[in-house]
Amino acid sequence: MDHLEVPQFLGLLVLILGAAKLLGLLAKRIGQPAVLGELLAGVILGVSVLGLANPKSEVLHLLAELGVVILLFEIGLETDLGKLIQAGAASTAVALAGVVLPFAGGYAVCRLLGLDNLVAIVAGATLTATSVGITARVLADLGRLQEAESQIVLGAAVIDDILGLIILAVVGGLTEGQTISVLGVAKITGIAFGFLAATLLLGSLLVPTLVRWFSRIDLPGTLATVAIMLAFGLAWLASAAGSAMIIGAFAAGLLLRKTPQAHEIEKGISHLGHFFVPIFFVVVGSAVDLRVFNPVDPANRQTLWVGGLLVIVAVLGKFLAGYAPYWFRGRKMVIGVGMVPRGEVGLIFAQMGLASGIFDSGLFSATTLMVMITTFLAPPLLRLLFPPAPPGAEPPKREGIQDLVGEP
Amino acid sequence: MDHLEVPQFLGLLVLILGAAKLLGLLAKRIGQPAVLGELLAGVILGVSVLGLANPKSEVLHLLAELGVVILLFEIGLETDLGKLIQAGAASTAVALAGVVLPFAGGYAVCRLLGLDNLVAIVAGATLTATSVGITARVLADLGRLQEAESQIVLGAAVIDDILGLIILAVVGGLTEGQTISVLGVAKITGIAFGFLAATLLLGSLLVPTLVRWFSRIDLPGTLATVAIMLAFGLAWLASAAGSAMIIGAFAAGLLLRKTPQAHEIEKGISHLGHFFVPIFFVVVGSAVDLRVFNPVDPANRQTLWVGGLLVIVAVLGKFLAGYAPYWFRGRKMVIGVGMVPRGEVGLIFAQMGLASGIFDSGLFSATTLMVMITTFLAPPLLRLLFPPAPPGAEPPKREGIQDLVGEP
Repeated sequence: MDHLEVPQFLGLLVLILGAAKLLGLLAKRIGQPAVLGELLAGVILGVSVLGLANPKSEVLHLLAELGVVILLFEIGLETDLGKLIQAGAASTAVALAGVVLPFAGGYAVCRLLGLDNLVAIVAGATLTATSVGITARVLADLGRLQEAESQIVLGAAVIDDILGLIILAVVGGLTEGQTISVLGVAKITGIAFGFLAATLLLGSLLVPTLVRWFSRIDLPGTLATVAIMLAFGLAWLASAAGSAMIIGAFAAGLLLRKTPQAHEIEKGISHLGHFFVPIFFVVVGSAVDLRVFNPVDPANRQTLWVGGLLVIVAVLGKFLAGYAPYWFRGRKMVIGVGMVPRGEVGLIFAQMGLASGIFDSGLFSATTLMVMITTFLAPPLLRLLFPPAPPGAEPPKREGIQDLVGEP
Repeated sequence: MDHLEVPQFLGLLVLILGAAKLLGLLAKRIGQPAVLGELLAGVILGVSVLGLANPKSEVLHLLAELGVVILLFEIGLETDLGKLIQAGAASTAVALAGVVLPFAGGYAVCRLLGLDNLVAIVAGATLTATSVGITARVLADLGRLQEAESQIVLGAAVIDDILGLIILAVVGGLTEGQTISVLGVAKITGIAFGFLAATLLLGSLLVPTLVRWFSRIDLPGTLATVAIMLAFGLAWLASAAGSAMIIGAFAAGLLLRKTPQAHEIEKGISHLGHFFVPIFFVVVGSAVDLRVFNPVDPANRQTLWVGGLLVIVAVLGKFLAGYAPYWFRGRKMVIGVGMVPRGEVGLIFAQMGLASGIFDSGLFSATTLMVMITTFLAPPLLRLLFPPAPPGAEPPKREGIQDLVGEP
């Protein structure tokens, strides 16, 4: 898919939106979160089945990234910063344990299989980063975003993203043969946390005035446009400051939630979300190559073995991390399962490993297998442990992120 | 702008949306249509000033095209098919005269300047096709979309697009040195009109059932997603059938307007419009190269001369075409001025001329100059002849396309 003509592009969008909607509806019918159907739609349109949606296409990639930025912005708009800070200690414990345990497990598995030290480090790193997008969407699908467990998961996923950046820098250095200084790591850590703190502090002072000012302009769509500019702008700023884009977008949502115009903004953004967010999940699904699951091909057996072991430590590591905040009296199991899905960052590690020659193609496939399986495992598992909120159990918030997927 | 990283892309979108919003507001303050400000934002961000928005970037091009498809879809949602058919005879007269007169004028000018027969034919062709997007948006900005003059302009612009396709095929053949058969031209004509007729006929039977069916699903956003899929799908189908994409999108709007869910659909789509439509106008503006206007550079003088003459026949030709439906008792002047802006199709002709070697770079610049000037001339001129509707003069339609720009 080198050059995309406009009519082709329109046709592709119709296919993506149509398949996502259809399979999302079917998933809902059988009691699963809609996002599972959207991921499946991606698998079917993707590289190994129909080959229609190419995750490497620049345009699809950029639209998908807009989707995840808008999703995290919407999640931020639904998230109470106070509750998030309340959950802070528990979130930090989950995030730290959720990085250490899978890393140690992955490292041990690789060493036991006789792999090199450096290989084991990079493989361990692929297991560390939770994909906040999928978990947040599932919790929203289930109408459970406001509960304590969800707040802990959300906070942990954000901290986890920051830890992921640090590990990324370290592993990136290792794969390039650099030695890593403690000072360098401390600097990255400081920037990442500093960005979030500075944004929330400065933003709390500036954003309400900004929004009040723009909400006076009677040009329809102005407020939603300004909101989306804030989300994209902070995402860009986060990235420029050496932090992660989705943290910027999430912070924008947190800041706008406190304004009196939050509801109006949520309504406007939800329509963009209906368009862009499914593209993200379809593109994630489209990267799944079903051919590596074929056990008849002897070349796949080693991959399936290593991948299977990595899946086990990946799931167990995050699952146990859910018990790290031992003082928390809620459903700790839900927290751990919520942290299970891995995503982009894991794939970035795997790609770095492959590009530097540390991973062979078998180990690369094994880690991508781990990413895929954890992604597909979490939605039904979470649904099982955390049944959809009964209607009326939550405050009547029918707009925004709940609205995005429409599950009560 | 070869490869666009995600953060850069987000930053670019912030710039585009921010500049469009800001200059759109300023334009409105001085009593001009907001679209004029958006075009100016494009000029400032574009190739000759800041060089930040590159109209040749694949992603920007595709997003801009989504913008114009969504705009024509919104215009279709606002357009009464009955009124459009009532205006049919007048529209056809305007469209035909609006193709013949500028073509004849452009041909004559080029021949008088001593240019070759083939050169004069291609130059004449660049003057024929009205850009319906700009005119429709200005009429919406002024709150005048429902009036008889606007309906005639809209109908004429659609027919003009079909005529443009036919001329495109003929000129395309000529530039490749083919001879053109009457049968070939008749075939293109038949397909273009046949597509529109077949879509409206079949659609009238199928679309209401389809919409009724989908509006029963209680997954929020479903209806808007289905509507946007219909618009993109018909745009793709139109292109595949040898017609123009925007005709398909316009037909989708006409069809959905007649359903009881039209208002809900309009509301959902307007939020996508707020995002995508300004991108279209900024990208159109960004292609303007102000350097060709510099009279100090002797190389520009010939271009300015030829371009100036072409502008005169381009404006006069469409202006006089407004008087073709001599039986119409409204403001004929408004019709002609509404047809003045040229856009993409004119640029496609110019590019074909350049690529085939029929145009030298001077003549190419002269025709792009004509496209730019007609584009920027029409909004203030139309505003002058057709002042904004007084509040309350129109039915209280505050959603949708009026809503898009918010002018009373």
